[in-house]
Amino acid sequence: MNKLFIVKIGGNVLDNPSAQEQFLRDFAAIKGHKVLVHGGGKIATSIGNRLGIESRYINGRRITDAETLDVVTMVYAGLVNKQLVARLQAIQCNAIGVTGADGNLIKATKRKVKEIDYGFVGDIKPEGVNITLLNALLLQQTIPVFAPLTHADGSMLNTNADTIASVLAVALSRDFDVRLLFCFEKKGVLRDVEREDSVIHHLTENTYGEMLQQKALADGILPKLENAFAAIHAGVKEVLIGDAGDLSRNTGEETAGTLITL
Amino acid sequence: MNKLFIVKIGGNVLDNPSAQEQFLRDFAAIKGHKVLVHGGGKIATSIGNRLGIESRYINGRRITDAETLDVVTMVYAGLVNKQLVARLQAIQCNAIGVTGADGNLIKATKRKVKEIDYGFVGDIKPEGVNITLLNALLLQQTIPVFAPLTHADGSMLNTNADTIASVLAVALSRDFDVRLLFCFEKKGVLRDVEREDSVIHHLTENTYGEMLQQKALADGILPKLENAFAAIHAGVKEVLIGDAGDLSRNTGEETAGTLITL
Repeated sequence: MNKLFIVKIGGNVLDNPSAQEQFLRDFAAIKGHKVLVHGGGKIATSIGNRLGIESRYINGRRITDAETLDVVTMVYAGLVNKQLVARLQAIQCNAIGVTGADGNLIKATKRKVKEIDYGFVGDIKPEGVNITLLNALLLQQTIPVFAPLTHADGSMLNTNADTIASVLAVALSRDFDVRLLFCFEKKGVLRDVEREDSVIHHLTENTYGEMLQQKALADGILPKLENAFAAIHAGVKEVLIGDAGDLSRNTGEETAGTLITL
Repeated sequence: MNKLFIVKIGGNVLDNPSAQEQFLRDFAAIKGHKVLVHGGGKIATSIGNRLGIESRYINGRRITDAETLDVVTMVYAGLVNKQLVARLQAIQCNAIGVTGADGNLIKATKRKVKEIDYGFVGDIKPEGVNITLLNALLLQQTIPVFAPLTHADGSMLNTNADTIASVLAVALSRDFDVRLLFCFEKKGVLRDVEREDSVIHHLTENTYGEMLQQKALADGILPKLENAFAAIHAGVKEVLIGDAGDLSRNTGEETAGTLITL
């Protein structure tokens, strides 16, 4: 099977122009098939504030009411997504900016109200991914660039970018050897959270289990690792956790970050 | 050759929810290949005002400075485009929202500064259209929905929606029998501007020439007709000028509006 890189990039890189430029160059230079999934960055909050729309949180989680949905649709699918696409085009990377609504690429269900009404938030599954159209786009050498939005029943829905990246990776692992890369602000999974040079370069289910027993992993990284192994079990060949600045090494054989496999 | 309908819809329909809903149903019901091009509507101005960004005009023409470009990118490519796409998806029309930057669908040149600096405005030609990707999308039964933005040199560019529709029509007339529809607030080209029932149902170059000599056409319609005949001369099979509410008739044989042919 052909290799496919699915790269999730967070807000911290989007908020820093020089880091963003370097990241986009490294992304454009990846050989073969690739998909970019971006988060929102601080600009949604700042534009929401300027429009007089307050961000509401319950238990630390953002609530997407109708006004907030309009703001994130404007900022994520409009401003952030199209700026990334225009810049990638300028360096000969034929990006096509999309949300899950476009071409019905990711159909969601609006999150059910239990204790908390999160508002216009989408929950997604690999079965909701339109792999036919994604394959057609990749075959045309166009590079999908996903904003963190999906849709259901005529409405856009705010959707976690990490989840979009994972769900795309699982859905496309039927047709590709997928490496799913989560770019964050650390070099990788560290043996010692204080030391950036203590990156664990390879983590398998066995070594992960041993480290869990030895309580050798920091709590903060555990949700990321659980998600990573869930993706691996669902068919994704490799998950990489690393620094956005190391993208060019992390798409090669000798990775700077943490490569996770079965 | 297969038939292709390219439909331009203006801001007045976007600003009216019930007119918009009817229009989208009629658009979704068009059989065969189709493309939608939308304008901006009043919401860009209202959001610009709320953000404290003033619209600047010179000789009645809007100037797109860097701040205004951000607003139109957010509103046209984000809010307006994705709301249309989500609503079309809900009525089983597999829309994919795009700008000219996406997939390099329409490469522009930034308008040269002569007497007036229009700012971030794109000028476009049929040669700048990526017909390979458009054909691939249409073949996948996905329906391109264009926001009025193009790109050059890493920047988005504000671009007239009528011009985008015309340029797409000319570029795609190589592969399709194109009917280019301009939906506006009148029934069609009128013999008597005071009477909506005086629609000229068919206009050819000969009848147009005769009517020009007789000064039988209102000045306001002349630029639209000049553009229409320019498109016809460049290979577009038919141009239709009519009311958004008449879309279902205007995509058939017996049109309610004005059908323009060679």
